[in-house]
Amino acid sequence: MLDGLFKPRGVAVVGASANPYSIGHIVIKNLSAYGYKGPIFPINPKGGHIRSFKAFKSVLDVPDVIDLVNISVKHSLVPAVLEECGKKGIKFAIVHTAGFKEVGEEGIKREREMVELAHSYGMRLFGPNSQGIQNADPEISVYANFTFVPMKPGNISIIAQGGGMGEMLKLHLHNVGLGHRMYCSYGNECDLTMPEILDYYGQDEGTRVIMMQTESFKDPTAFLEVASRITPKIPILAIKAGRTREGSVAVSSHTGTLVDQARMASAMYEKAGVVEFHDTDEMIKAAIAFSTQEPPSGRRIGMITNTGGPGIQAVDEAVGHGLELATWSEKGRAKLADSLYAEASLGNPVDVVATANADHYHAAVETLLTEEGTDMVLVFFVTAPFTDTEAIARRIKEATDASDKPVVVVVETYSEFYGLIDKLRQSDLPVYEFAEDGARALAAMFSYAKLRDREVETPPEIEVDRAGAEEILAGYEGRDTYLPQKDAFAILAAYGIPAPKVQLVSGDDDLDAVAADVGFPCVLKVDSTEVIHKSDEGGVVLGIRDGEALAEAFSDLTERFAGKGATFIVQEQKPAGREIIIGATEAEGLGHLVMFGLGGVFVEVMRDVAFAVAPLSRPEARTLMRGIKGFPILEGVRGEPGADLDAIEDLLLRVSRMVADNPSITELDLNPILVTKDGACAVDIRLKVR
Amino acid sequence: MLDGLFKPRGVAVVGASANPYSIGHIVIKNLSAYGYKGPIFPINPKGGHIRSFKAFKSVLDVPDVIDLVNISVKHSLVPAVLEECGKKGIKFAIVHTAGFKEVGEEGIKREREMVELAHSYGMRLFGPNSQGIQNADPEISVYANFTFVPMKPGNISIIAQGGGMGEMLKLHLHNVGLGHRMYCSYGNECDLTMPEILDYYGQDEGTRVIMMQTESFKDPTAFLEVASRITPKIPILAIKAGRTREGSVAVSSHTGTLVDQARMASAMYEKAGVVEFHDTDEMIKAAIAFSTQEPPSGRRIGMITNTGGPGIQAVDEAVGHGLELATWSEKGRAKLADSLYAEASLGNPVDVVATANADHYHAAVETLLTEEGTDMVLVFFVTAPFTDTEAIARRIKEATDASDKPVVVVVETYSEFYGLIDKLRQSDLPVYEFAEDGARALAAMFSYAKLRDREVETPPEIEVDRAGAEEILAGYEGRDTYLPQKDAFAILAAYGIPAPKVQLVSGDDDLDAVAADVGFPCVLKVDSTEVIHKSDEGGVVLGIRDGEALAEAFSDLTERFAGKGATFIVQEQKPAGREIIIGATEAEGLGHLVMFGLGGVFVEVMRDVAFAVAPLSRPEARTLMRGIKGFPILEGVRGEPGADLDAIEDLLLRVSRMVADNPSITELDLNPILVTKDGACAVDIRLKVR
Repeated sequence: MLDGLFKPRGVAVVGASANPYSIGHIVIKNLSAYGYKGPIFPINPKGGHIRSFKAFKSVLDVPDVIDLVNISVKHSLVPAVLEECGKKGIKFAIVHTAGFKEVGEEGIKREREMVELAHSYGMRLFGPNSQGIQNADPEISVYANFTFVPMKPGNISIIAQGGGMGEMLKLHLHNVGLGHRMYCSYGNECDLTMPEILDYYGQDEGTRVIMMQTESFKDPTAFLEVASRITPKIPILAIKAGRTREGSVAVSSHTGTLVDQARMASAMYEKAGVVEFHDTDEMIKAAIAFSTQEPPSGRRIGMITNTGGPGIQAVDEAVGHGLELATWSEKGRAKLADSLYAEASLGNPVDVVATANADHYHAAVETLLTEEGTDMVLVFFVTAPFTDTEAIARRIKEATDASDKPVVVVVETYSEFYGLIDKLRQSDLPVYEFAEDGARALAAMFSYAKLRDREVETPPEIEVDRAGAEEILAGYEGRDTYLPQKDAFAILAAYGIPAPKVQLVSGDDDLDAVAADVGFPCVLKVDSTEVIHKSDEGGVVLGIRDGEALAEAFSDLTERFAGKGATFIVQEQKPAGREIIIGATEAEGLGHLVMFGLGGVFVEVMRDVAFAVAPLSRPEARTLMRGIKGFPILEGVRGEPGADLDAIEDLLLRVSRMVADNPSITELDLNPILVTKDGACAVDIRLKVR
Repeated sequence: MLDGLFKPRGVAVVGASANPYSIGHIVIKNLSAYGYKGPIFPINPKGGHIRSFKAFKSVLDVPDVIDLVNISVKHSLVPAVLEECGKKGIKFAIVHTAGFKEVGEEGIKREREMVELAHSYGMRLFGPNSQGIQNADPEISVYANFTFVPMKPGNISIIAQGGGMGEMLKLHLHNVGLGHRMYCSYGNECDLTMPEILDYYGQDEGTRVIMMQTESFKDPTAFLEVASRITPKIPILAIKAGRTREGSVAVSSHTGTLVDQARMASAMYEKAGVVEFHDTDEMIKAAIAFSTQEPPSGRRIGMITNTGGPGIQAVDEAVGHGLELATWSEKGRAKLADSLYAEASLGNPVDVVATANADHYHAAVETLLTEEGTDMVLVFFVTAPFTDTEAIARRIKEATDASDKPVVVVVETYSEFYGLIDKLRQSDLPVYEFAEDGARALAAMFSYAKLRDREVETPPEIEVDRAGAEEILAGYEGRDTYLPQKDAFAILAAYGIPAPKVQLVSGDDDLDAVAADVGFPCVLKVDSTEVIHKSDEGGVVLGIRDGEALAEAFSDLTERFAGKGATFIVQEQKPAGREIIIGATEAEGLGHLVMFGLGGVFVEVMRDVAFAVAPLSRPEARTLMRGIKGFPILEGVRGEPGADLDAIEDLLLRVSRMVADNPSITELDLNPILVTKDGACAVDIRLKVR
């Protein structure tokens, strides 16, 4: 439990000084200014008073209970401070001080020693190189953080790795008059982890929605587990820094890992039911909607406007984000016709026209909310000098009271009418400035509802020869190498993945025997750890129809790959089918991501691939398959037969099981897999182990 | 010249009343409140005074010159008013009144009569169903419009079809303290057209950038011509309502046409060098950058930040929008190292760290601006309580003075520091709230620069047998029909488009002769206006190797299509190659759009197609080809030979010439065209004429 951190009974601030620009001073100012409910203890070797609070020379001198300490002394002094805090029985230490992991080896060592020291006293560390925490719960009101955005109670909790981004999220809530619930920016995450904090947020009754920003995941598995538990009740909205290669470089120099982290993050979000954003503003605006509105139960949006153009922008944006335009029942249409001006347009958007009054707006909103075919409503409203805007705001609100369907309002107005916007916001309606913003916020709510209501199953039990595969893999572990084809295919067999008959050819004298087993037509392939892209390097001969052709191909390849330690295999040639690729790559700290795509140019040029976290459940395998743009090709287009989707699903489950069972596999490519209308067969494999 | 509209020497307002909510009254209020430099004449049959201005009973009673009249009387009274205005010699009439084209047939008739009447007096009409115009030029200061956003001089001119959208654009400039130059929302466009107004804006010395919003194009050709002339000197930023099917329905019930209008708009923008937007806010933010900054001369962005996270968001967004991260020279790096704190990070973004002072910011901005490899700079700045933010703002500005490279600033702060934002804005720096906004604004500037600097050529002269094609087409005009294959292929031949040998088969007795001419292998195809998708309906037999097979195929097809008025053709079978599609569709009021894509599923499932306005210049043909995601497939991937790109380019030019020469062609599909490494051949054609 993190109560000591987010609901401390007393806070000490070590490094507090009279300098009003010092971090310690600002923390005391914030604690005091926002009415922290417990005692505040500045700690300063000089004693005296800081902002009227008596300063103690050491936490050990404080006679009362302290749960939390904020530390901003220079890093060389931190261990001594922690020692005292430990002795005092303090539970949590926020280390603001920088100069740790972010400066390299030496800093990492400092961090490790600091954590050991803290743990020896049963104390947990937050940070270092961190901003701190806040809890705006009026019962607590703790602002143990050195930043500047005013604190006000709200129901949106925020967790951010980067301080600048965390502050940005708070700031824009503040700008629209909203507060937040809990907040933290956790910095280096040396001890207390993001998933632990997230877990705590998830159990907080005052939190209605969570916004999170991450740069990298220290413990993806823990995040996945915690987030999956939270999202059925509380939406999590997430943004991940570094979704482009360049962005990842900016996050860190560990490029390779971090490009994968962006992909891994998306796959985790999908699996855990987290709504992902790429734009900070868009996420904040969605959070504002979640903060007062219930998620919709479907994708059908109804719109009301008093001017044409912005309504069309909202339609384009809504449809572009996967919503559908609602249609009205006969009864609803009649009610609209009765209530609105004759010039009003009764389609979707309903155009109540510029001169519409409060009753018109009320009737339109109420009608749409009672329509069974409408799941959510966007109200657009340009203030016209000839209407009673106050009454319109009030009546819109009244119309929403009887319904749980989400409603957002977009108001086009200028400073003179800002009071109107405040009024709508005070009555718990989300208000935006652009029609597109409102449409995107509702689309985000629908995305959450869709994720929340998705089929969740555990990965199925599949009968496989796990021991057999492990035995083969054991022989390669620690060698960081690709497996020879024969063994790689044997592992496929152990996991019940269909493959052609394969035989090793040790010399040209056994070609006949091998051919007799495999049969014609067959394929001859080179098999060498030095030859990764066999086809590209001329190491595959297809369509061998008889023994003579086989002997000739064998002699060709032997010559071509002389000196490369190559062996050769002969395999059954499978009838042509639709080509797909299933791959898996190691995702550090999480296990593996499974990749799915169509073969050849669809992956290499069109980049049409989808990823998911292994092991897959059946619904996840189905979603993964349908996650590529080219999926209709597998269903069959223009009279061509569809591919065997059940076979593909089965393959995805088996591959994902295989990599989940065997963490030493770092890379797997089944490329191509030939799929016909009744079956699938992996005709080539690359499998690498650590 | 539209001086009488935008620089009127006197304005009359017909329909002016004492009712403060009436349109006429508000127009008078706006004219007066914003200091219109000419005389204002309320016209009201009752006479008296309105807002202290003497009201005349008729414009004919006014002793002074009137250039412009605003009319808001009900539509039945408009003709009589126009009659008087005509007699008075008024040059321009803004008709606010609704009840015209938008209400259907009767309204269209009213509009036509009104225009005839106006023209009989040499008067031009603006509207009807329109908001009006503004010119904030301090020499004129005319607010002949009934809306509410305060007017202030600026250099952004706005033209909007929809009033609500036009107002939105003004409003958000106002919200950041910016004004505008000229403004109009033109409504029904019954006489004075959007291109005429745009043309006028383009000649205005006080206009630095133009924002436009359209719902539909009345005269696309005129728009294209005018916009192409303006964009080399003045950027045009455009948003088109109705880019989704649903959005188009919202624009109008003429769905078919309008889906094409969205595509047509994009193709026109591309051809004319107009920067297209889909998000209103994004366009406004781009306009703000254009209003003070010069477009960059390349795509390399340099960034400066004092906190990590938002910098990464900016990187992701910039790269995602086609910008590249700049790198610094040795010298630049050394200068940064010398000027900044030791903890500063000298990569891109430069992280000057949170405690950076004004000199650090100055040095960083100045260094990046003098770097040859940097084309634009984004400065991110989170206000920290321990820094002199005023000084930072001033020094950032000073650093930008010596450079023409565009600079945008993103400030993360709250109300207490808004003065700082104002200060930056007053010193002509665009300021945004989110890092992504700044990156997108710079990306939009680069998009403009790229369009402005693109190769512009006239479509090449191509030797074709235009008369031959016209003669064939003349035989079908007015029949709204598909051409028989033989004639369709003949038209291809007239335009020098390679196709296989084709022969009509009139009965099975001439099969041998036909085969002898065409040669084996050959293809037999049905040819009937009732059979549109020949392959899908089993009307194509490929790979016919001898006379016997041909006879058999002929007998099969004859039976299959009995009673459908079918004839048959035999054509040479071309060797397989990469399949592409070139098509053309009529774009009302513009001519034709040429479509390009790869064959089969790339078009039908992956929707990977690109469009351009016919006739194409060579650079346009090249851009069109490269506009599909699958283009690398044509260049050759994984050892496969590339396709003959010159042949494709030549085909695009010929097809675009063909449709441009022959406006009766409503639909053309060359599908597939087989392309090998040395040549391209259109093996099937559908050609429809009006």
